Amino acid sequence: MRLSKLPLTTFKEIPADAEIASHQLMLRAGLIKRLASGLFTWMPIGLRVLRKVEAIVREEMDKAGAYELLMPAVQPAELWEETNRWERYGPLLLRMHDRHHREFCFGPTHEEVITDIARRELKSYKQLPVTWYQIQTKFRDEIRPRFGLMRAREFIMKDAYSFHLDQESLQTTYDLMAETYQLIFDRLNLPCKSVDADSGEIGGAQSREFHVLADSGEDALAYVENEDFAMNVELAPASAPKGERAAASQDMKKIATPGTKTIDQVCELLAVAPEQTLKTLIIEAEDGGMIGIVLRGDHSLNPVKAEKIEGVRSPLTLATAEQVESVAGTKPGFAGPVGLKLRIIADHSALHRSDFICGANESDQHLTGVNWGRDLPEPESADLRNVIAGDLSPQGGHIAIARGIEVGHIFQLGDKYSTSMDAKVLNQNGREQPMLMGCYGIGVSRIVAAAIEQNHDAKGITWPDPIAPFQVVVLALNSKKSAEVRSSADTLYETLTSAGIEVLYDDRDVRPGVMFADADLLGIPHQIVIGAKALAKGVLEYRQRKSEDNSSDSKEINLDDIESFIGTQIQSKN
Amino acid sequence: MRLSKLPLTTFKEIPADAEIASHQLMLRAGLIKRLASGLFTWMPIGLRVLRKVEAIVREEMDKAGAYELLMPAVQPAELWEETNRWERYGPLLLRMHDRHHREFCFGPTHEEVITDIARRELKSYKQLPVTWYQIQTKFRDEIRPRFGLMRAREFIMKDAYSFHLDQESLQTTYDLMAETYQLIFDRLNLPCKSVDADSGEIGGAQSREFHVLADSGEDALAYVENEDFAMNVELAPASAPKGERAAASQDMKKIATPGTKTIDQVCELLAVAPEQTLKTLIIEAEDGGMIGIVLRGDHSLNPVKAEKIEGVRSPLTLATAEQVESVAGTKPGFAGPVGLKLRIIADHSALHRSDFICGANESDQHLTGVNWGRDLPEPESADLRNVIAGDLSPQGGHIAIARGIEVGHIFQLGDKYSTSMDAKVLNQNGREQPMLMGCYGIGVSRIVAAAIEQNHDAKGITWPDPIAPFQVVVLALNSKKSAEVRSSADTLYETLTSAGIEVLYDDRDVRPGVMFADADLLGIPHQIVIGAKALAKGVLEYRQRKSEDNSSDSKEINLDDIESFIGTQIQSKN
Repeated sequence: MRLSKLPLTTFKEIPADAEIASHQLMLRAGLIKRLASGLFTWMPIGLRVLRKVEAIVREEMDKAGAYELLMPAVQPAELWEETNRWERYGPLLLRMHDRHHREFCFGPTHEEVITDIARRELKSYKQLPVTWYQIQTKFRDEIRPRFGLMRAREFIMKDAYSFHLDQESLQTTYDLMAETYQLIFDRLNLPCKSVDADSGEIGGAQSREFHVLADSGEDALAYVENEDFAMNVELAPASAPKGERAAASQDMKKIATPGTKTIDQVCELLAVAPEQTLKTLIIEAEDGGMIGIVLRGDHSLNPVKAEKIEGVRSPLTLATAEQVESVAGTKPGFAGPVGLKLRIIADHSALHRSDFICGANESDQHLTGVNWGRDLPEPESADLRNVIAGDLSPQGGHIAIARGIEVGHIFQLGDKYSTSMDAKVLNQNGREQPMLMGCYGIGVSRIVAAAIEQNHDAKGITWPDPIAPFQVVVLALNSKKSAEVRSSADTLYETLTSAGIEVLYDDRDVRPGVMFADADLLGIPHQIVIGAKALAKGVLEYRQRKSEDNSSDSKEINLDDIESFIGTQIQSKN
Repeated sequence: MRLSKLPLTTFKEIPADAEIASHQLMLRAGLIKRLASGLFTWMPIGLRVLRKVEAIVREEMDKAGAYELLMPAVQPAELWEETNRWERYGPLLLRMHDRHHREFCFGPTHEEVITDIARRELKSYKQLPVTWYQIQTKFRDEIRPRFGLMRAREFIMKDAYSFHLDQESLQTTYDLMAETYQLIFDRLNLPCKSVDADSGEIGGAQSREFHVLADSGEDALAYVENEDFAMNVELAPASAPKGERAAASQDMKKIATPGTKTIDQVCELLAVAPEQTLKTLIIEAEDGGMIGIVLRGDHSLNPVKAEKIEGVRSPLTLATAEQVESVAGTKPGFAGPVGLKLRIIADHSALHRSDFICGANESDQHLTGVNWGRDLPEPESADLRNVIAGDLSPQGGHIAIARGIEVGHIFQLGDKYSTSMDAKVLNQNGREQPMLMGCYGIGVSRIVAAAIEQNHDAKGITWPDPIAPFQVVVLALNSKKSAEVRSSADTLYETLTSAGIEVLYDDRDVRPGVMFADADLLGIPHQIVIGAKALAKGVLEYRQRKSEDNSSDSKEINLDDIESFIGTQIQSKN
């Protein structure tokens, strides 16, 4: 592609409202344009990346024996009513009605539609198993769309659905899909981790998430090297501390802690470690009352675990400052379990502390030397916290934490949808039996953003070769002043393109500095620079956008050798 | 693809509600499934056809220098309000609002969105011309979706938009797009005709439609062989008859024509040709009154022409029987221009008649020997009718009529959108100037249906090679009974597939009759039949689904020669 023909506007400034690197860089490099909140146009260079991701996903799904189809984006309400999701899905579902006042939604997912197809198409166990997939535009009416494509409202998903006679068959396909996903992320050259996860809204018994690893990832992943332990922190169990709780050795005392608003400030004032303190969070109960949650000062509440406790309101709802004051008689920072007239649930680690420090339910006051059973009743206890690095896994290994961006999620749905929608087949004995289902999603457009989160530097994007919009960028420096530069660059562009190499040819009449900056911003892996001086010596300059040793050194390559040199470079990267 | 693995249900019966061949055959062959009115799922084999059409369209658009992008399906109302189309588009526009009560639509077309991109991206004439396109899902809330994909509500379009500094540049791209479209339909192997057309809702000065020729086509196309005359009948001018009107030779008489409800019945009763009669249609005027339209009995009213006459209500609205009775004093079949107290507009051909027959404005009565100027005033006259075969073109050639299915439409929009949306660039003199626009659509999903309308027989679809879902179908007859058949078929399937040939392998345990019927229904161009008897002779049977001589004869091919034979067959067809 000749850059002189493509209207491409790049920006040096970080766009307002773009909070994360991928969003900033995609806007700066002109890969996407914002149309409205959570709605983006894929501009030509950005679309090339999206299509490459799509192609790899498609190839691996096909190899795994899945059949591609394409369902409508617009779905009738009646199907969603069969599974009770028309109401339950809430405002995330973009609803509309047609000119005849029939209700529809813009599909955020397609379990109902595919189950409707399955119940009409599949009649016998002989037709099973089958896996169908599509790569298609979806819509989720996010309350606060942000982070560009990471949480857009309109987005592109690969969603697959499998149908089975029995659990063994479902497990086989589920395992095959897990392998296929791993292959896909390997081919995309995006280091990834798969973890056990919560099934959430989609439902079902078992699910596994696939995360592209990136420091900016929203999800925390708990894993143990050389152990079969890898879980989203939201699901990872925190082992209860081993051994008996130490006996009380201090008396309970009230001490003034004026102006302390955080655990850290309390610890600094009292010169203690955070794990010696317990914090008390007030949350809403299902019956309209309140519940006190007690955690170690260095631990954080895990909402997914808390929501699973009977009596806790779901979704988890923290009490307002007013509600806290009404039950604890003080501001949130000074609430504590002693004398609190509430149901109290302590995390296992909090229950294991003796001589602890906690809020005194009085403004600017804490209690020290507090002990369960002596100064306040022994509470209920549960696993309520997020695991942290160094925690022990059930098998005894040390847990590490990685940050990830969720780009894939596979689920065993069992008979949840097939039972409510009456999707049955005849089994070997001629009896009707509900099919079992699996579903398997990949966030195709999200992968592009995740790839940038994982692959960028101060100058711009550093695409992995398999999904770079072009393999090579050719920069013709000051070609208006040099007929040799222009003709060598033209020839090279034609030669490489004819050899099947994807080349972005910067033939614009702009300063070399602009060319270099744009090439770095766009992140094409292999750069070839053609300048008059080097050309006089019969050489070109070659540079990798992201070299193994992180140097930005360029190499001189003889003009005659460039085609085979580039061919070798590209081959070694794909 | 092994048919034993793919759940494919085909039907012998013509599905209810499927009125046209393409709709019937796509449902019967399992290429699509209906989800709701005007909404269809593309099943795996159907989707392969769609993707082939997409790929050819994409390749030719890329070759023409257009840049692919992808705009959101969901569009904000504000943009449509800038062009006044939010109201004007009417109920065809599927509207919705998000959780924050902002209004959106599911885009039926993208002029507003692309113009918004252009006004933000394009600042200088140096960036022009540029053509952007996308292949994307659209929605039109048709009042009566029917004919399957031919008039679906959700459908796939290729829509392209070009931006220019001046008319010369617009004309150049418009001509290039016309050539590109012709190339696309040539490559699809779908005989096609391009005709001048009305611009309709989209607007603009000049437009051209591309039609796949098929007897079942909704559109009538007027053309003259060896002349530059090709127009949609809605636009084709009917030349006024040459020469003076013949002098009156008969007296006006009233005669009884009891029970005649049609022109044909009147002609039969009076033993005259239809062109000797004139019919009178009453239509609504813009001011709420009525207008009488007079046409020759063998001609039909052209609504597009009528709507362009000052004072005629648009859209054209025929008077009800009650309205006719109130102005003509009789039922519609007996209305006539003599004594009718209305504005009368006669088509040029009607004005040229003397001694004509028309309704007498009395029940069961007609007038004969009527003459303009003598028996009633000379009326206004205009071109109001559809041309018919044999009419003369302006250059004097004989017009022929073909039936077509509209699959492409290109428009010169001029500054319609760029002016209302303030999309300007700086010209060579540094002055702001609105850009000129062209837009270019292809109905990608519609092409699949149109291809079937053009290519089918009593047994099913007869795909043109370039868009057939598979190139070859291999039928293994009674393979359960013959290990040789099974192993030869398996080997052939593997061999052809490895050679890059797309093979549908019917390895099902079904009767040969079912296999043959499904192969014919699915319309794969090249059939290879492997049966035990032939195999014992070392041969296979080869048959073309649609042979040049329309015979269904099969040839025997030696087992050893089949790969090269098939290779040659395929090559000659692509």
